[in-house]
Amino acid sequence: MNELTHIGNDNRPAMVDVGDKAISHRMAKAKGFIKLEPATLELIGNNALKKGNVLITAELAGTQAAKKTFDLIPLCHTLLLSKVQVKAELKEDGAEVVSEVKCTGQTGVEMEALTAVSVALLTIYDMCKAVDKNMELGRITLIEKKKETVTE
Amino acid sequence: MNELTHIGNDNRPAMVDVGDKAISHRMAKAKGFIKLEPATLELIGNNALKKGNVLITAELAGTQAAKKTFDLIPLCHTLLLSKVQVKAELKEDGAEVVSEVKCTGQTGVEMEALTAVSVALLTIYDMCKAVDKNMELGRITLIEKKKETVTE
Amino acid sequence: MNELTHIGNDNRPAMVDVGDKAISHRMAKAKGFIKLEPATLELIGNNALKKGNVLITAELAGTQAAKKTFDLIPLCHTLLLSKVQVKAELKEDGAEVVSEVKCTGQTGVEMEALTAVSVALLTIYDMCKAVDKNMELGRITLIEKKKETVTE
Amino acid sequence: MNELTHIGNDNRPAMVDVGDKAISHRMAKAKGFIKLEPATLELIGNNALKKGNVLITAELAGTQAAKKTFDLIPLCHTLLLSKVQVKAELKEDGAEVVSEVKCTGQTGVEMEALTAVSVALLTIYDMCKAVDKNMELGRITLIEKKKETVTE
Amino acid sequence: MNELTHIGNDNRPAMVDVGDKAISHRMAKAKGFIKLEPATLELIGNNALKKGNVLITAELAGTQAAKKTFDLIPLCHTLLLSKVQVKAELKEDGAEVVSEVKCTGQTGVEMEALTAVSVALLTIYDMCKAVDKNMELGRITLIEKKKETVTE
Amino acid sequence: MNELTHIGNDNRPAMVDVGDKAISHRMAKAKGFIKLEPATLELIGNNALKKGNVLITAELAGTQAAKKTFDLIPLCHTLLLSKVQVKAELKEDGAEVVSEVKCTGQTGVEMEALTAVSVALLTIYDMCKAVDKNMELGRITLIEKKKETVTE
Repeated sequence: MNELTHIGNDNRPAMVDVGDKAISHRMAKAKGFIKLEPATLELIGNNALKKGNVLITAELAGTQAAKKTFDLIPLCHTLLLSKVQVKAELKEDGAEVVSEVKCTGQTGVEMEALTAVSVALLTIYDMCKAVDKNMELGRITLIEKKKETVTE
Repeated sequence: MNELTHIGNDNRPAMVDVGDKAISHRMAKAKGFIKLEPATLELIGNNALKKGNVLITAELAGTQAAKKTFDLIPLCHTLLLSKVQVKAELKEDGAEVVSEVKCTGQTGVEMEALTAVSVALLTIYDMCKAVDKNMELGRITLIEKKKETVTE
Repeated sequence: MNELTHIGNDNRPAMVDVGDKAISHRMAKAKGFIKLEPATLELIGNNALKKGNVLITAELAGTQAAKKTFDLIPLCHTLLLSKVQVKAELKEDGAEVVSEVKCTGQTGVEMEALTAVSVALLTIYDMCKAVDKNMELGRITLIEKKKETVTE
Repeated sequence: MNELTHIGNDNRPAMVDVGDKAISHRMAKAKGFIKLEPATLELIGNNALKKGNVLITAELAGTQAAKKTFDLIPLCHTLLLSKVQVKAELKEDGAEVVSEVKCTGQTGVEMEALTAVSVALLTIYDMCKAVDKNMELGRITLIEKKKETVTE
Repeated sequence: MNELTHIGNDNRPAMVDVGDKAISHRMAKAKGFIKLEPATLELIGNNALKKGNVLITAELAGTQAAKKTFDLIPLCHTLLLSKVQVKAELKEDGAEVVSEVKCTGQTGVEMEALTAVSVALLTIYDMCKAVDKNMELGRITLIEKKKETVTE
Repeated sequence: MNELTHIGNDNRPAMVDVGDKAISHRMAKAKGFIKLEPATLELIGNNALKKGNVLITAELAGTQAAKKTFDLIPLCHTLLLSKVQVKAELKEDGAEVVSEVKCTGQTGVEMEALTAVSVALLTIYDMCKAVDKNMELGRITLIEKKKETVTE
């Protein structure tokens, strides 16, 4: 029987201490998908939606969201991201968002990469919701993660 | 040929004017899912994860995120939400998050409901990422939307 | 035996629905105190602290914090405050902060008034911490609360 | 006569320059108290309040507030907190909140620890205000502070 | 002699009470300018800057900033903006930004319109600063303001 | 013909990677001006405006805005500012704001200095808009920028 199960109700949420971890170069890539109807894809492709350019707006929203991860996910640490790149692209039956986030610090940047993808997808949803009633966000996963020792 | 396609590159993003819309009672429900391994489900169920109580933390993060939708999604309007409820529950192969958001105002609350679900799922991901390497967020959709005339 | 006690662990946090409450004129006043040493009081009174004018900075910080209550207190609703006034004054053995907050809406403004007081007191602490090692914040309470029907 | 008194009205608030300070391991602990009625203590203990689990919600709110200290206290510096822990516990006549914050940086983390405690206490107030009309926040103080040289 | 001059140092900042003002339809337009070198104008016009599409990014940044005015300008009230539109256009010797903001509420939206313009101009500065060392922001003014009674 | 012009519409906004830049001591100074009428200058000088002390409020608003630059300017990196100083002074035909920002990091602090100046000027505008209908913000420029190698 698992000893952990004894922790029970006293197991209160807490931001874990990363103060003793080494400072490393961190990288994470994430991706996600939003299912769109053919008519919506055409409107986005032609930049013809009333709310404006969908892909650029989504990429910017995702980029800004990465910097706010510490404020959105309660137990995430504030980090100094050195790079945030969010790419939104049209595919056959929807749009795919891929993000890459880098940081030199004591904890990984998966949550920043995943948050960027999620908020970019939500932004696409927002801009297309007047014309597409069958959208669905999904397949949001981490696709790569790296940690390299800082050498001076 | 669609006339909209002529808008082209001049179609700049803008927050649409909702000033002439009637003030209505608005409601939206959304849901989403995160795939988790059996061992992770057991740890959550036993409240045995190092980072603390997963479901409550996720629900609170989702609730707070709903109130920040205006700041995350560039073209969303600031709204006075009268209700935000986020429920996270364990299922056979993961956790499901359902949200319900209400507002009396000039624009709908779908984005608030979807943002609440997404951030709650991201919070589950964050709290379980040390023990589960195969998580995936998905099936994030609107499940209900209502608009009722305000009668005085 | 109290039936409420059966709610137990399933009692998850949620922002209560205020959508059916009447829109009223709301007012709340709160106050609080920070204990300061005589030498600190003299420095504040003479506006001679290295960090600058303590009372004005505290009042502004409290005013701004009132507007962020929805972001700080997880289950508070976003409100449109029509008035926020924060007054910090030197007393015999410390400084007293009094706040008054008004709003026309569906829920009271106690938390906004109390948050304004708390953040104003924390700001005084911050500005004096280089010279005073015995500060203590306390006596933070609601001093008045009003709700008046909106008559048109 | 104190020369400082000559600074007078020209003493404008400013974030002091910490650029020349050594980077040290910093730690601060703070605590605070909220007076509660016996009936309220029982409701919290039985997790029977309408707004949900009080202690966990307060701890999470305090944790998140610590990360926002730079935004709440005008002259505080942005810091990369490596640890934030907030514990809320029921006592005989109220609830006590204790926080511990760590950081490796150029300035101390007292304000972060005190802000965490204050916002956790305000959250308890918010969740109990429907049932307890005599709450008071107080005894908010720093209980420990450490600074250790970084050795490499 | 002006009686107001007696207010002196006791004149502490405070958010004025707008609770008794009528709810009106409010509109404000503002504009501003950033001086740019011919080579920079060409790079923006060709969408050839390393940081990406300048005008769209500036417009989105201005739009989002309008919604954050309450958080940036200490004595501004939180408002529910019904429309925010920010347009950035290249002129002979720089770029001009024009904003239009609408709201139905108790106080005007000049500050929101001016904040949108300022942050859009700052964003242009940020995206061009690697190639243009002589930029200057200016001519930021209100160009129109309207207030109309709400008729039901 | 400029090769850059081929980038065209695919040139999406992205936060550039600063991860390989050296960590340096960075400093930037910026300034700006707001044109005010003689009567307004007298009211500010006598601290006789209804909204309170203009210069201190503007300086504090500018200081806080510097810390939020990452959140306002989409492609700016989050930075740990070691110093922020904002000075507002009355001149013959208006008020001048000067800022100085320092940081030890991988990217410059121009945007932080310029954002501080802009928000301080907007705050002066806000506090004087009831009495002065001819205000204009301008001459916002960088006045100095330094980068020094970190020597240990």
